[in-house]
Amino acid sequence: MAIKDVIVLADLLGTNKKIAADIRAELERRGILATNLLSSPGAGKTSLLEQIAVRLRDTARMAVIEGDIETERDAERIRAKGVPAWQITTGGACHLEAKMIAKVLPQVPPDVEFLFIENVGNLVCPASYELGESLRIVLLSTPEGDDKPKKYPKAFTTSDVLVLTKADLLPHVPFDVEKVKAEALELNPRLRIFVVSAVTGQGVDELIAFLAGRRRELQAPHA
Amino acid sequence: MAIKDVIVLADLLGTNKKIAADIRAELERRGILATNLLSSPGAGKTSLLEQIAVRLRDTARMAVIEGDIETERDAERIRAKGVPAWQITTGGACHLEAKMIAKVLPQVPPDVEFLFIENVGNLVCPASYELGESLRIVLLSTPEGDDKPKKYPKAFTTSDVLVLTKADLLPHVPFDVEKVKAEALELNPRLRIFVVSAVTGQGVDELIAFLAGRRRELQAPHA
Repeated sequence: MAIKDVIVLADLLGTNKKIAADIRAELERRGILATNLLSSPGAGKTSLLEQIAVRLRDTARMAVIEGDIETERDAERIRAKGVPAWQITTGGACHLEAKMIAKVLPQVPPDVEFLFIENVGNLVCPASYELGESLRIVLLSTPEGDDKPKKYPKAFTTSDVLVLTKADLLPHVPFDVEKVKAEALELNPRLRIFVVSAVTGQGVDELIAFLAGRRRELQAPHA
Repeated sequence: MAIKDVIVLADLLGTNKKIAADIRAELERRGILATNLLSSPGAGKTSLLEQIAVRLRDTARMAVIEGDIETERDAERIRAKGVPAWQITTGGACHLEAKMIAKVLPQVPPDVEFLFIENVGNLVCPASYELGESLRIVLLSTPEGDDKPKKYPKAFTTSDVLVLTKADLLPHVPFDVEKVKAEALELNPRLRIFVVSAVTGQGVDELIAFLAGRRRELQAPHA
């Protein structure tokens, strides 16, 4: 990359970081836990959100911002669960940026407690762009293979949580859960790791309990 | 994106296209069929190349250029099959560029007939960068889901071949092969589609026969 390109990129990232900081401050002040979900295409981000929606239905208010290159498909799946969802289509861009989130925020109802932002399916680019989230989750599905953390390190080093998805497929794919846990923790010792399945429901309640705990921590300074 | 960023990007893409055209001309003159493989992380690019390596062992000479953010893992897997392989690590960049290929080319032995370039695992960015390939293959694995072509259209519209991988997992995942074929062909009617499994070997011979045919077409004009 030429020097001029590096300067332009640094400028873009710096502007993004400032907007993200503003979003984070506003959401935390409102007591909203914003979570940014990152993964490869098809790792199960939307399916996990559907599972969370069903479980939170009677106890907490959630909302979802969906990011995709094209189509309204994911937002429609979330709305079908009775959850408000806004679709951002990037029209080619490989990741969401904070300014896209800022445009949607005025539509988020004031009583929302959990705001999930599902990024474009991409294990590389989204890791470089903060969106104002208080929590970042990287998902890795068992069919993707257990060699991924070290091949795509930034998604793992910048996240707070690793969710291993599609645990129901473990009998059919070569995937060593313990190896992945060890490799991911070597990259990032503060990672919290959950093993889930959107088919059997395994691990989803534990993840929700963790998210609820993080939301309580958000509110504690204001208590 | 600001105007200055658009100009810088157009400049980068234009330079890349020129280098790619030079590479393509050289490889086609040498009778080498260069294939660029694109997919999400973990869709099975390396596993497919391992299967091709085993089958071509006694009949044709192949070589592989591996692209990854980090690690030499994929090149090591290919070398273990007795095939020359060079690893390019991009150190963060989400796709290969033609100039990276140009640097490796002098090392490719003169008797190679099939050169495979395995791009960084990413269904978005690599679609915008020609590498000098004569053939582009996009892989989609069955666990990724059958909604992907329209969500990530550019990888499908710019490819010559779609390989549906992990067919062995079809009994365990919701994936409608006919729906994907129809959607992909709607985006790109000239796509050739193969359904393969690196576990059972399904479809690999048919894909190799197609590649051999394309290589013969390359040579025809010089005959």
